[in-house]
This record gives sequence, C-alpha cells and structure tokens, in this order.
Amino acid sequence: MNEYPVTARTRLRRFHEKGSFDRGVVHAILDEALVCHVAFQHDGAPAMIATAHWRAGDRLYLHGSSASRAMRALSGGAPACIAVTLLDGLVLARSGFNHSVNYRSVVIYGAARALTGDREKMKALKAFQDKITPGRWEEMRAPTVQELKATTVLEFDLKEVSAKIAEGPPEDDPGDIDAPVWAGVLPVRRVFGTPEPAPDMTREIPLPDYLRNYRLPR
Amino acid sequence: MNEYPVTARTRLRRFHEKGSFDRGVVHAILDEALVCHVAFQHDGAPAMIATAHWRAGDRLYLHGSSASRAMRALSGGAPACIAVTLLDGLVLARSGFNHSVNYRSVVIYGAARALTGDREKMKALKAFQDKITPGRWEEMRAPTVQELKATTVLEFDLKEVSAKIAEGPPEDDPGDIDAPVWAGVLPVRRVFGTPEPAPDMTREIPLPDYLRNYRLPR
Repeated sequence: MNEYPVTARTRLRRFHEKGSFDRGVVHAILDEALVCHVAFQHDGAPAMIATAHWRAGDRLYLHGSSASRAMRALSGGAPACIAVTLLDGLVLARSGFNHSVNYRSVVIYGAARALTGDREKMKALKAFQDKITPGRWEEMRAPTVQELKATTVLEFDLKEVSAKIAEGPPEDDPGDIDAPVWAGVLPVRRVFGTPEPAPDMTREIPLPDYLRNYRLPR
Repeated sequence: MNEYPVTARTRLRRFHEKGSFDRGVVHAILDEALVCHVAFQHDGAPAMIATAHWRAGDRLYLHGSSASRAMRALSGGAPACIAVTLLDGLVLARSGFNHSVNYRSVVIYGAARALTGDREKMKALKAFQDKITPGRWEEMRAPTVQELKATTVLEFDLKEVSAKIAEGPPEDDPGDIDAPVWAGVLPVRRVFGTPEPAPDMTREIPLPDYLRNYRLPR
C-alpha cells in the first residue's frame, strides 16, 4: 500500500491546498523537518511541546526527559496530534484576501507507546542520531544505563496521517489580475550555517564529514 | 509591568533552557516568527493547525476561513495552546545524551475572541499585512464585504505566556570533555530567497521596496 487510509479527521476540507496520503510524500516531509509540535490534553486543557522527531518506516519517534510532564502524559497513551510544518514561501497576491503561504505539512493523530527495553531504546536513539549526523553514533561513547533510564522514547504508528502541500504562484480573482500591484512569491528556506566548534575542545579535532555542506534530508 | 505573571502552567520545570516572562523577549520571538501552531480540543481529541500570526501590543491575532473547523472551534472560545518555535541550532555534544537544540520559543495559553465589526477586522488585517510587507496594504484594493465575512479574525490576550531560550555551546559531562569527538553548534537559520514574480503579471511592475533585502522583524 502506497497510501495511508483517509479518515474523518484526515479528509481534506479545503481546496487551495493539495492533500496527500501518499507514503512517500508524508515520509519526505517528516524526514526533512527537524522539529514537530505535539498537542495533548493536560489537566483538562490543551498543552503543546515542540521537539525533535525522527522516523523509521511507518513509525514516528520522539524523546525527552522521563521527568517531563509531556513525556509522562504521552507515555500513558494520551491521545496526541502531531504537526510538522515546512514553510516554503510567502505568496503575495493582488488582493489581501488571496495572500497565502506555500508550505508542506503533515498531521498525525495517534497515541504513543513508550519503549521499555534498553536495547530498543538504543536502536531508536541511534536512528535519531543517524538522521541528523550519520556516523556520529559510532564516534561517541555508548549511553549509560542511567542516561537511558532518564530518557523516554515514544513511538507512534503512522496510521491516521495526511500531508498538505501548497505551492506555486498566487491565484488571483480574474478582476484583480490587472491591478498595479507586484505579485509573486517570496521564497522562505531553512539553511545551515558554518559549524561553530565548542570553546572547550581540548584537542584539534577536524570537522567531521557529516557536517560538511550539511543538508537534511541527507 | 515589563513581565508577564508566572502561572502554574508557565512556571519553568526544566533547567537547561532559560525561561523568560519578559514582555520584550516574548514580543521579539512572536514578531520574528511567521507561523505558529495552535492546539485545541475537537470532538474530544487534540487537534492542531499551523497558521500565520501577528501581534499588536499584548494581543496575538490569527485568521482563517470562517468555514474552517478550527476557526469555528476557536471562535467559540475553546481553550487553546499556541506555540511559536524558532530553531537556531543543532547542539552536538560529546555524548548522545547531552545533544540538544538551540531555540527561542513562546507558549501562550488562552481562549480567543472573534472580531465582529468590519472596521476592527480591517484594522487587524492591515496590521498583519504591515508585519509582512509594510506599505502593501495601501497598494491593494480594499477587502470586499464578502471577503471580510469569509474571514475569521481571532484575538488572544497575552496573559498566560512565557518564553524559553536555549543558546550557546554544548554542555558536556566533565568526564566527556576529552573525548575525541568534534563538539559544537551547527547554526540553523531562516532565509528569504529572491522574489519570484507571478507568471500572470500583465504589466511591468518593479519589485517593491518592502521586498528588497527582506528580513523579519523589519
């Protein structure tokens, strides 16, 4: 199956964006993004965290301090909504009304399982490190038992999930096309700067290959 | 008062980040960001939208189609949590455990009022346009009655709000400092590209000043 199922919650209601349930489209957006937002109910009111995420197959992973209220709420299987949003451009139409943004987004509904075994936690955390800096996991010391205990790793199935993509030039009302207003798109992009070595490095360590001309997805 | 009050929900629980209730700090993050995430409860489960936002004084504004389920739920005063997150860097420590990200974020708890009068809607929408492209509002035709009706504008008081900032180099365990692993920060930045004119422009219109060397906040 190359498509996720459409549900009452993921069915597209608006039309100026393009909805997609295609696995490849969903995965590409998740893999390019560094940060997601996770909404959950806490003490009877909406709460939210922003956190890094990573994906393996049809699963999305988050991690955090085992002491945090969000990790505790989500570990308990609280229903969650996860959004990943990549902003691509500001779309300047002739009318204020037709202004919009270009973006690629994914929304996931689900509840987490907290990984329990040290081995499965390690495997998941390595996949996270491999997303960001492949090869670095092997350079570092292994996590300690204490560190693994202090880290909650959450696993979500990608089951109720959809992507939305808005792209291209402004779409104006026919009557506005001749208006004497510049129209078009101002692209927005994420870029990575020059790596800044830690001031407390005690020896000469060359910049690792995985940080040269950095990009994501790799 | 230059600080927002601390509440049970906004009190900082973690310590590797720096919490702030300073108005100026909160406002600067909101004004630099183009997009926020809004969490609310819908049909008994967490739901979320990503949308553009703008600020005027101690109020945050969102807008959207009056037909959208999110605008309808939020217009009704549903409790909401709004997060704005600016990612500034990937922090590569010597151990996996001490990896982190540098960021500036704001979280707002509250419920919206939907603006009702055309005049207050217009004023708010002009403030939005002025955030993104000051001067453009005056270049465009005015919104029609129909367009204003189709647009919901939501106003949130900044009352229960806090900022968090994580910045600087990695903080490693003393025993890890001598590890033969490159450590430091990979900066992440948002940049604006070269404006792309709409293919359907029917006349020569020079690029407006507000799009030259674009940056935000302006």
